[in-house]
Amino acid sequence: MDVCSDNTVYIGRKFFMRYVLAVLMKFNVFRCSTTVIKARGSNISRAVLVAEVSKDLIGSINYSSVDIGSVSIESSGIRRRVSTIKIVLSRVGKTT
Amino acid sequence: MDVCSDNTVYIGRKFFMRYVLAVLMKFNVFRCSTTVIKARGSNISRAVLVAEVSKDLIGSINYSSVDIGSVSIESSGIRRRVSTIKIVLSRVGKTT
Repeated sequence: MDVCSDNTVYIGRKFFMRYVLAVLMKFNVFRCSTTVIKARGSNISRAVLVAEVSKDLIGSINYSSVDIGSVSIESSGIRRRVSTIKIVLSRVGKTT
Repeated sequence: MDVCSDNTVYIGRKFFMRYVLAVLMKFNVFRCSTTVIKARGSNISRAVLVAEVSKDLIGSINYSSVDIGSVSIESSGIRRRVSTIKIVLSRVGKTT
């Protein structure tokens, strides 16, 4: 099974280094060429932090794309807009 | 004086509609062709929300670019990383 087929890290409410570790695993242990970071609502700021810290730690990665958008969620009868972010990180240069 | 020379909206801790109003002013009152939304730290999620709501309200605008980055800030002797976002909104089609 290809571990890189599901290369998305969803950002939740945990300490940001947990997610940095997940990104590091994908790049340095599983040797994936790209990793996608996704977050919603107030976790968006944490997603940006995770992306920045991962980029600094790994070094040879770059942002392929940063997309923002929103989804409509109905909770307890009230329709709410929740904004989303999708950050695509990819390795620059050759995979060693 | 050209009001559109400083077309940046900095997102702070106020209610997000305040900033949506500022973006609306720039596009619909001052007739600027582009507006830049900038935010730092935990305000990043609010910036994405402001951009999304503005885009829905104005209609004829689009994201030119979404950039993320980080700055190093020293507060009370401790060096901290603060992540930043810069969203460039521009009008699509002709200015009426």
